[in-house]
Amino acid sequence: MKRVAVTGGAGFIGSNLARRIVSLGMEVVVVDDFRTGRRSFVADLLNNSLFELVEGDVLDEGLLESAFAGCDWVFHLQANADVRHGLDNPTRDLEQNTIATSRVLEAMRAVGATNILFSSTGSVYGEPEVFPTPEDAPFPLQTSLYGASKLAGEGLISAYANGFGFTGVICRFVSILGEHYTHGHVFDFYRALKNEPSRLTVLGDGKQEKSYLYVQDCVSAMLTAADHHEGSPGAFPYNLGTEETIVVDDSVAVITKHMGLVPEIHHTGGQRGWTGDSPLIRLDITRIRGLGWAPSMTIEQAVERTLEWFDANPDVFEQQAHADEGAR
Amino acid sequence: MKRVAVTGGAGFIGSNLARRIVSLGMEVVVVDDFRTGRRSFVADLLNNSLFELVEGDVLDEGLLESAFAGCDWVFHLQANADVRHGLDNPTRDLEQNTIATSRVLEAMRAVGATNILFSSTGSVYGEPEVFPTPEDAPFPLQTSLYGASKLAGEGLISAYANGFGFTGVICRFVSILGEHYTHGHVFDFYRALKNEPSRLTVLGDGKQEKSYLYVQDCVSAMLTAADHHEGSPGAFPYNLGTEETIVVDDSVAVITKHMGLVPEIHHTGGQRGWTGDSPLIRLDITRIRGLGWAPSMTIEQAVERTLEWFDANPDVFEQQAHADEGAR
Repeated sequence: MKRVAVTGGAGFIGSNLARRIVSLGMEVVVVDDFRTGRRSFVADLLNNSLFELVEGDVLDEGLLESAFAGCDWVFHLQANADVRHGLDNPTRDLEQNTIATSRVLEAMRAVGATNILFSSTGSVYGEPEVFPTPEDAPFPLQTSLYGASKLAGEGLISAYANGFGFTGVICRFVSILGEHYTHGHVFDFYRALKNEPSRLTVLGDGKQEKSYLYVQDCVSAMLTAADHHEGSPGAFPYNLGTEETIVVDDSVAVITKHMGLVPEIHHTGGQRGWTGDSPLIRLDITRIRGLGWAPSMTIEQAVERTLEWFDANPDVFEQQAHADEGAR
Repeated sequence: MKRVAVTGGAGFIGSNLARRIVSLGMEVVVVDDFRTGRRSFVADLLNNSLFELVEGDVLDEGLLESAFAGCDWVFHLQANADVRHGLDNPTRDLEQNTIATSRVLEAMRAVGATNILFSSTGSVYGEPEVFPTPEDAPFPLQTSLYGASKLAGEGLISAYANGFGFTGVICRFVSILGEHYTHGHVFDFYRALKNEPSRLTVLGDGKQEKSYLYVQDCVSAMLTAADHHEGSPGAFPYNLGTEETIVVDDSVAVITKHMGLVPEIHHTGGQRGWTGDSPLIRLDITRIRGLGWAPSMTIEQAVERTLEWFDANPDVFEQQAHADEGAR
């Protein structure tokens, strides 16, 4: 691995990955349209000679071709990651996740790049019956448009692996936490409590079990899997998470304790926070551990680390309020 | 079931389904763009008061909405079914199968139709490790763009079932044979032998095991599953096939015997006829049998029936030659 393209490279996970690649002395080409990615997340990299920014849409195949030329890897992280509101705009996941992945693959084919790592999701398991859920769990039924769109992306990558000799590393993430995290439970709770410290609404019954992974551990796992498979044709799915889970109400407790608050908690009720929410996510990570990778911290530590980052970066909440408005 | 829309209703399976629906006294609305569907396959239905033809592209959502209005079921059979040449045009399956399925679902949502039956494929199992392969086989890796595009369609339907209360009956077909069959092994061999009776080229080593189902049995199975699930929200996958398989060389023997020929057989070699071809397809059909359905004939009988239909309809080969040219 010498020169790596990262789509969504100014986003949460992408910007951490880009920074790591540069810190390892390799070149990185970030492709981002700054729709959800942020300039501030890559601002310190702009003057680094190992860093290149290509600003534009991943649906633009010509742009992708110029970005991917000379890259030995493409880490395709760009996505619509708004799992919860998929039903409000049912074709958005198709366009930004499935069709975008097709464009990425076609651009790679055009310039002769054949190694791709794809940010998929534990949501592709729908509501699994096997826990912890292994990569070869029983053929799942999709419960969200987000999961369906990522499954479609996985399928495309596997077909390119088989048909064109691509190497496809498919990473099925649990929820990720850490620096640059601006989207999800922990973010929503912290923001809500900043606005209204005495009261917090929790979607569902608060008993949903979630699994989280610290973003730096996630970056290490991706690089480990990519190094392992580089140049070997085939599709290689990996669950990326920890063995742990945390109940939503317990995440809330960590957050309120950190903030020194004792709010009244209101549960909206029901097993699922929203349609397509999974009441339990716990992935089997035996396969990625088999490559020598291990998570460096517990979920609670990852939540704490994230809260510390929020404390130090209060402006992310204002920026996100603008972004949310723009997206609706 | 009273009024049914059939996309691809002038195609091989669709035209047989449309005819059956009419013969059962129900109304059918056929949507077809006649790219691969044929006017001759529905010509005798045109004056039937139960039959309506809507000519146009399934990517045209407005057209779909007008076709689906008042229908209690949509049988979405339209597809690019050219599994073998997927790699020549890698975005065709995405457009004609995945994106088209999204358009169908959105059009249904717009007019309040919520029952969909989808023609998926045993190819979604890739190269399975479990035989016969059940619907909940281990999470597969896709080996063809066709399979990947159908898997994506399945995922969309499941997500609509979970998110919008749709009923989604997902039929994973083996290869289908019978009246109006114009595409696949048996067709190719018959045509090749008509042109050159003394010599036949067989892709692969001829030992690939294939499973076939007679089209009238396929139609009965689809209607059985649809009747069973009508109005029950959820996604319900069914394998449609027989317990049998037939080795490619044995299909060739049935064909040559029927035609009274003793050609020299040339095998191109290798376990797979083409990239993404599956050396063995045998689906577990316990689930569809559990609804009371059973196939009415053996694979050999289905091949014979198909050959008799070829003998009686020599013009299909001329028409297909034109269609093939148009498609390249």
